[in-house]
Amino acid sequence: MAKSVEPLYERVAVEPLEQEEKTQGGIIIPDTVKDKPIRGTVVAVGCGYRSDDGKILPLMVKVGDLVTYAKWGGNEIELNGKKVVILKESDILAVMRD
Amino acid sequence: MAKSVEPLYERVAVEPLEQEEKTQGGIIIPDTVKDKPIRGTVVAVGCGYRSDDGKILPLMVKVGDLVTYAKWGGNEIELNGKKVVILKESDILAVMRD
Amino acid sequence: MAKSVEPLYERVAVEPLEQEEKTQGGIIIPDTVKDKPIRGTVVAVGCGYRSDDGKILPLMVKVGDLVTYAKWGGNEIELNGKKVVILKESDILAVMRD
Amino acid sequence: MAKSVEPLYERVAVEPLEQEEKTQGGIIIPDTVKDKPIRGTVVAVGCGYRSDDGKILPLMVKVGDLVTYAKWGGNEIELNGKKVVILKESDILAVMRD
Amino acid sequence: MAKSVEPLYERVAVEPLEQEEKTQGGIIIPDTVKDKPIRGTVVAVGCGYRSDDGKILPLMVKVGDLVTYAKWGGNEIELNGKKVVILKESDILAVMRD
Amino acid sequence: MAKSVEPLYERVAVEPLEQEEKTQGGIIIPDTVKDKPIRGTVVAVGCGYRSDDGKILPLMVKVGDLVTYAKWGGNEIELNGKKVVILKESDILAVMRD
Amino acid sequence: MAKSVEPLYERVAVEPLEQEEKTQGGIIIPDTVKDKPIRGTVVAVGCGYRSDDGKILPLMVKVGDLVTYAKWGGNEIELNGKKVVILKESDILAVMRD
Repeated sequence: MAKSVEPLYERVAVEPLEQEEKTQGGIIIPDTVKDKPIRGTVVAVGCGYRSDDGKILPLMVKVGDLVTYAKWGGNEIELNGKKVVILKESDILAVMRD
Repeated sequence: MAKSVEPLYERVAVEPLEQEEKTQGGIIIPDTVKDKPIRGTVVAVGCGYRSDDGKILPLMVKVGDLVTYAKWGGNEIELNGKKVVILKESDILAVMRD
Repeated sequence: MAKSVEPLYERVAVEPLEQEEKTQGGIIIPDTVKDKPIRGTVVAVGCGYRSDDGKILPLMVKVGDLVTYAKWGGNEIELNGKKVVILKESDILAVMRD
Repeated sequence: MAKSVEPLYERVAVEPLEQEEKTQGGIIIPDTVKDKPIRGTVVAVGCGYRSDDGKILPLMVKVGDLVTYAKWGGNEIELNGKKVVILKESDILAVMRD
Repeated sequence: MAKSVEPLYERVAVEPLEQEEKTQGGIIIPDTVKDKPIRGTVVAVGCGYRSDDGKILPLMVKVGDLVTYAKWGGNEIELNGKKVVILKESDILAVMRD
Repeated sequence: MAKSVEPLYERVAVEPLEQEEKTQGGIIIPDTVKDKPIRGTVVAVGCGYRSDDGKILPLMVKVGDLVTYAKWGGNEIELNGKKVVILKESDILAVMRD
Repeated sequence: MAKSVEPLYERVAVEPLEQEEKTQGGIIIPDTVKDKPIRGTVVAVGCGYRSDDGKILPLMVKVGDLVTYAKWGGNEIELNGKKVVILKESDILAVMRD
């Protein structure tokens, strides 16, 4: 059984965080709101974009970054018993910083 | 909990203004009109457009600009208890100037 | 409250003329015909098209030009109590000359 | 009231001919056939195509050419009491020669 | 009344052959089969493809070639009492050779 | 009546093999499975891809190759009493080798 | 009957693994989950991407790689009595590593 994943080209692998049930202000988040972007930690990154003439252009996000991405982008796989989502870097909206 | 947001590439983060209920002339704005473009303040900008050969081309809008953008562009996240919309610079129609 | 608007890149701001109710020959214009292109005066222009390698290529239309554009192109905002439409230069069909 | 029209970039202005009711052989043209391409005379041409790096590449059709174009391409405006259609040169199928 | 046609750029004018009612083997061709590609003779060719930087790249098919093309590509006009179809060279599948 | 076919540019002509009714293991192939890719022999190839600046780039498949292609790609014509399919090289999935 | 397959250009041939009925944790996988990405072993790779000017740019995945790909990408053929899927490298999400 595979132990690690190597996303191809401009794809990255993200371990999604459990979606918070309440906002910081304590308000319960209704289901409809759960369509909102999802947060997760980058666990693997592809080698980069393949340019038209074959050069490989490195990605911006790094392993360990906390990112937020649109809910419907990406494919979910199972790795070491955990849910991991493979998505394109272009599906990532932003890196969340402390 | 993340304190700040770093939009990726050509994306920007905007804090939307509360939509005015009345026009300058005092007329109550019906719901249908509320589909109109939204105004908000830029709170963070991405590094820029990634060109085909990997160069990064800086954006035009700056942090602090008051901008107007099409209502349905962008994804809404919560940051420090506030609503923030992550959208592409190309979704921004114009910068509003005093 | 913003006093002026700076359209982004290849966008322009146009103040639409009131749609004539009758043709030059005095014939009343039925509603269906009102889908026809709209005329308006350019009140602000963006800096220009952003080329793939980041150069800015100036627009053709100028402030003060009377232009005609397809009815459904553009987003309508309110500026100084007046209706202004933000649209892309490519939505403009022609400049009307005296 | 505008007297002349300056189509933008690769657009041209065409004065459509009245659609013939009969073929050369005298057969009455049914409505369905009237979806066929339309003929008209070029009355104004834009400056040309804008290339990716901003060069302007002149058009092929000239003012005075009799052209045939697909019925649904273009926008109809009124100029000096006459119907004029603004369309892209790429909507023009051919120039008709004597 | 126009006597000849000059297709624009990469377009060509083709005089379609009457669709055979039977196959070579004598079998009657049902209507559904008549959706099959159509054969016709090239009667005029455009100057060529317009490249992004404005060069004109000549076409491959010549006047007099017998070609086969997808049924739904192209626009039909009348020229000197005959049916002529204006289509893009890219709609042509092949040249038929003796 | 045309004896041979010269596909245009990146098109190829393929004589489809009769679709096997049974798998190698002797199982009867149901109709639904017949949507599977089809095999056939290449009988003619076009000159090649036309690049943006007009160069012709030769194709990879050769006359005589046994290829497999997606069922719905291509147009069927009749040549010398046989069924021939004209399709683009990009519709071909693979060359089958002994 | 063909013994081996040579995918064209950027295509690869993959022998899909039987889809696990249970997760590592022993939970039975419901049908809906079976839409998840599929794993399989690469058995043949095409020569590479064809660039706009005709250069061939080699692929990243190698024969023998265990890969995961979106369920609906690719075409299924039969080779030597086994199921083989031909898909584009861009349909592959990641290479799974031990």
